[in-house]
Amino acid sequence: MKEIVILDPAFRAMANILTDHDLARMRTIAEIVWARDEPMPEAEIDAVRDEVAVIISGSWRHGDVGRFPRLRAIMEVGGGFPSPQALDYDACLARGIRVLSCAPAFGPAVAEMGLGLAIAAARQIAWTDRAFRTHDPNWSHTEFETEIGTPFTLYGKQVGFIGLGGLARVLQPLLAPFGCQIQAHDPWLTDTYLRQQGVTPVDLDTLLATTQVIFVLAVPSASNRALLDAEKLGLIRPDAVLVLLSRAHLVDFDALTELLLAGRFRAAIDIYPQEPLPQDHPIRQAQHAVLTSHRAGAIGEALLNIGRLVADDLEAICQGKVPFAMQVAQPEFIRARG
Amino acid sequence: MKEIVILDPAFRAMANILTDHDLARMRTIAEIVWARDEPMPEAEIDAVRDEVAVIISGSWRHGDVGRFPRLRAIMEVGGGFPSPQALDYDACLARGIRVLSCAPAFGPAVAEMGLGLAIAAARQIAWTDRAFRTHDPNWSHTEFETEIGTPFTLYGKQVGFIGLGGLARVLQPLLAPFGCQIQAHDPWLTDTYLRQQGVTPVDLDTLLATTQVIFVLAVPSASNRALLDAEKLGLIRPDAVLVLLSRAHLVDFDALTELLLAGRFRAAIDIYPQEPLPQDHPIRQAQHAVLTSHRAGAIGEALLNIGRLVADDLEAICQGKVPFAMQVAQPEFIRARG
Amino acid sequence: MKEIVILDPAFRAMANILTDHDLARMRTIAEIVWARDEPMPEAEIDAVRDEVAVIISGSWRHGDVGRFPRLRAIMEVGGGFPSPQALDYDACLARGIRVLSCAPAFGPAVAEMGLGLAIAAARQIAWTDRAFRTHDPNWSHTEFETEIGTPFTLYGKQVGFIGLGGLARVLQPLLAPFGCQIQAHDPWLTDTYLRQQGVTPVDLDTLLATTQVIFVLAVPSASNRALLDAEKLGLIRPDAVLVLLSRAHLVDFDALTELLLAGRFRAAIDIYPQEPLPQDHPIRQAQHAVLTSHRAGAIGEALLNIGRLVADDLEAICQGKVPFAMQVAQPEFIRARG
Amino acid sequence: MKEIVILDPAFRAMANILTDHDLARMRTIAEIVWARDEPMPEAEIDAVRDEVAVIISGSWRHGDVGRFPRLRAIMEVGGGFPSPQALDYDACLARGIRVLSCAPAFGPAVAEMGLGLAIAAARQIAWTDRAFRTHDPNWSHTEFETEIGTPFTLYGKQVGFIGLGGLARVLQPLLAPFGCQIQAHDPWLTDTYLRQQGVTPVDLDTLLATTQVIFVLAVPSASNRALLDAEKLGLIRPDAVLVLLSRAHLVDFDALTELLLAGRFRAAIDIYPQEPLPQDHPIRQAQHAVLTSHRAGAIGEALLNIGRLVADDLEAICQGKVPFAMQVAQPEFIRARG
Repeated sequence: MKEIVILDPAFRAMANILTDHDLARMRTIAEIVWARDEPMPEAEIDAVRDEVAVIISGSWRHGDVGRFPRLRAIMEVGGGFPSPQALDYDACLARGIRVLSCAPAFGPAVAEMGLGLAIAAARQIAWTDRAFRTHDPNWSHTEFETEIGTPFTLYGKQVGFIGLGGLARVLQPLLAPFGCQIQAHDPWLTDTYLRQQGVTPVDLDTLLATTQVIFVLAVPSASNRALLDAEKLGLIRPDAVLVLLSRAHLVDFDALTELLLAGRFRAAIDIYPQEPLPQDHPIRQAQHAVLTSHRAGAIGEALLNIGRLVADDLEAICQGKVPFAMQVAQPEFIRARG
Repeated sequence: MKEIVILDPAFRAMANILTDHDLARMRTIAEIVWARDEPMPEAEIDAVRDEVAVIISGSWRHGDVGRFPRLRAIMEVGGGFPSPQALDYDACLARGIRVLSCAPAFGPAVAEMGLGLAIAAARQIAWTDRAFRTHDPNWSHTEFETEIGTPFTLYGKQVGFIGLGGLARVLQPLLAPFGCQIQAHDPWLTDTYLRQQGVTPVDLDTLLATTQVIFVLAVPSASNRALLDAEKLGLIRPDAVLVLLSRAHLVDFDALTELLLAGRFRAAIDIYPQEPLPQDHPIRQAQHAVLTSHRAGAIGEALLNIGRLVADDLEAICQGKVPFAMQVAQPEFIRARG
Repeated sequence: MKEIVILDPAFRAMANILTDHDLARMRTIAEIVWARDEPMPEAEIDAVRDEVAVIISGSWRHGDVGRFPRLRAIMEVGGGFPSPQALDYDACLARGIRVLSCAPAFGPAVAEMGLGLAIAAARQIAWTDRAFRTHDPNWSHTEFETEIGTPFTLYGKQVGFIGLGGLARVLQPLLAPFGCQIQAHDPWLTDTYLRQQGVTPVDLDTLLATTQVIFVLAVPSASNRALLDAEKLGLIRPDAVLVLLSRAHLVDFDALTELLLAGRFRAAIDIYPQEPLPQDHPIRQAQHAVLTSHRAGAIGEALLNIGRLVADDLEAICQGKVPFAMQVAQPEFIRARG
Repeated sequence: MKEIVILDPAFRAMANILTDHDLARMRTIAEIVWARDEPMPEAEIDAVRDEVAVIISGSWRHGDVGRFPRLRAIMEVGGGFPSPQALDYDACLARGIRVLSCAPAFGPAVAEMGLGLAIAAARQIAWTDRAFRTHDPNWSHTEFETEIGTPFTLYGKQVGFIGLGGLARVLQPLLAPFGCQIQAHDPWLTDTYLRQQGVTPVDLDTLLATTQVIFVLAVPSASNRALLDAEKLGLIRPDAVLVLLSRAHLVDFDALTELLLAGRFRAAIDIYPQEPLPQDHPIRQAQHAVLTSHRAGAIGEALLNIGRLVADDLEAICQGKVPFAMQVAQPEFIRARG
């Protein structure tokens, strides 16, 4: 007999995250319940709660896992993990309920955007393109210097990773052919592990002061709010490029805006403290910045990856095998995130 | 006794192509004559022409190689090969004079720009950045479609290379982590060779009609002028990106401009039929295009590569070893270029 | 205050698994108790059992984990996981006690031996070496065929992996430069996962009947005893090489011996049903076999890896970070192993 | 009209080097003349000598190239280049006749054998296999040391390449996954080039005294006869493995034999000063050596590669394209070989 699986992806829409093929795969593997865009009503949940083996949800709002005596896995399709306020991780751990996040679905799209933004800033692609529309970019092949600095290639440069989680590990192979030396700062990982991943562990100040391309890749946590404050941002080299990719949470955005308007260094930014960004936000005038509108991960291909990963791990779980596609909640990270 | 070497890089400036370190290396290896930015006067040339073993020049203007009885190599630092009108390749061949080009010096910078432009166009980085300055880009994570089409990642896409020379071979490893299938069209190479390089040989029409990212990488020749005319450009998929990287010579630029203004597909362009491009050229208004101003190769780092390659091969030649750094003129290519 | 850690490696000897450097690292991280070659006496254990956070043991013989109220991790340095008879995994799971195995320490040495044995058998290195000592090997460059068959290279061949666990994943990059197509059979993994690892999932019969180099890499379990019985072995191609690497448990050794003495195919064998192998075992006369004496993993370098992995993960655990070096017991695998 | 091509492979046999497929390809490309195992008679040659464009020969015995007024390429299928005594390279150079060798056909098979021999020696595979047949190898997992020394893995070891030609470049990717540091000694290449290939240029004494796996890969020349004499061999570390792969010419074989019988270091040897090796040669008793009978390159698959490369380059030449598959004679190497 097939296992009962709740598919309740709200706020995600079914069509955005699941191809027909992946939904059909899931129906072959398990008895799929609900499978609509609207949040599943309590009455419907009650009807299956004694039997349900897996709950796929856009955001955990089912309270105590004790309600689901046979639950073995929670699959989050929102993008992160349920917050510890919403979900009792200790109870999950004690019962062997795996909590899985679809975060890896976004890795390739975000990493590609990170590389694209780094090149766009280092090689001044966005600035040159803008100049074509308003006045004229530098043409002469020997006037390398422009009003926003000197273009440079990524080849052989010192690169810094703030955070070496899943996103960094997808970005690393994209940078590999450029032969960069990568320094990394990640307080959740041991130096030994960082070295095994082929990066040099450094403290944050060293990273900021010595690398020429700085990628902000860390997952937000209580302890890294505004990690890059005015003082830290002040350490960045004038010829460096800062790529803000994971969350604006990690940076003092007012300080950053001021520095960019002053031309202290260059940056590429995909995420903002307010989205949409107010029309009069001064960063919109920063010539030293490449600006994109939180579109690193949330594009169609990445969302459809979610359904693929969910179907893959559902197959594993229903066959008594180990799921490998989604990210498993590690107790240490959950506690740290507070 | 050291060999006599003429260093006459005009139109290149010494300081742009040679670090102090590389110039010092060259002086250790050989007796370097002239070494100034101005073209070497005939009288000075005459004084050493019986002895000179290597001539390093920005553009060959010394006529008949018969004037230099001990000449063994010509090193071009301009960027291409001397034209067959300026240099008698048969005479060089018969005397075993190697003709070497510094073209490989530009490979990494141009390939990186090619990748950056492809991502900037596919992921709509330049368009989004422009929208921030004038109105507002799309923010909603679910409205993937913008006024210029749907963004896409390079991962797993069909890619086309028009030309599989030195530039393509440097671009290939940058694309490798994206797992693209590469089709290539290059009439100077056998299908067997193309397959060995890991690409699928196809005719031009197939390439244009089936790939989603098309890189124009071919060296200009008599036979590929306006190769991409209105008819060929018309084969390109509406969801494709054309990256014009090697020379505007290969494309009917008026036809391309018209298609981009009509939003038929997207493009990224670094080279133009006229440079600087006239202020009123309509391509400047094309929202579907990413525009850069012939800055793919000619940046400081790439020019300094020239000196390094020249010093490397000068070392080899003066020690009776095979030069490997610069590109050797192959008789077939020279003839083809007409 | 430092955490209390029991280091009780028997049957392993301290000096075989720990360099001075790694032991010193461990003492910096934690309060290391016992640290001798003899098994730790009960009285000594009792003295610290209320406080101990981590137990490093050669083979779990401490019964109920309830005795250790603050225990957070068990690190096995024997080579596998504690048996489910010896350790209550459900209790560990419920309390969040990680069970870690040093198995990855052996991966590189075993994978290298697997590649070496495959080449030794395919290229007839061992046979040729033996022939030099007794009579004479084939010399003539055109008599490719020898009395034990035709030598072949690994380049481009069909390869089969029986089991795609940790060992297979270390062997895969060693085979990558040979461009082999890898088929894999592993009932604990989904087909989707196998494909993501770059191998083709197949059933066992297909693997045996179609691949030319077959690696036996699976961990022994109740369900794979004598998986390769006479009938299955009979499917192997006459021109194939069987590399027996993980455990003799998976093969009917008598049937294998008979087939090799009959010259049905070639094999390389590192593990045996009895070790040492009796002097009169007929496999010792098999010219079609390359024989080594269970030395794939257990060489000095691999054993010293154990201490390095243990120190790495001890550092992580004592700092509240996620351990990444050793292998974590997955409930599904433990259950399967029964 | 098709070009006339002489196919006169003696001493090679047609069937050994050409598949039906490759011969058919050649017949499609060109008018193939002779194509038999016996050397082509003079009268037959005379009949086509005014027209022939390409001569494919097992060993050049046609004297002066002046006899062939339209000759554009010589393709050697024997394995090396014609000797300068047999072929006037200056005349070829002056007329633009390319001289091409099939040497690259053997690269993969030889490189694989080199890796296999290195592992067989380092991990004592051949010794253990022999011990099984006569007495018994070491079984105990903790007695790492055997009568021929301590086994070691290639992972992370210092490796030395004597010669960095085509063979070394095929061996390099096979070693890459082992993370070895490679030192190289090659007097025909500049240090700069060696560094670009990812190896450290060193003098021969340093290489011999510091690396643990030494590969002899150099092409024989007048200047490297017995390069490894008793004094040089005496520099080798006691824990090192010497892999003799390219030609016995490079080593004082008597000195090597003596050192191996004395157990000074370990070696793997595929080539000998006399082949077949006399039955009473003392090296046959060396327990510290792995011995194979010149079978690294000359196996069926490698010979069939010859025909493939020849057909590939014939296609290029007949279509006016640059041949890339075979090795082109470089004037510097020809002169050096003297």
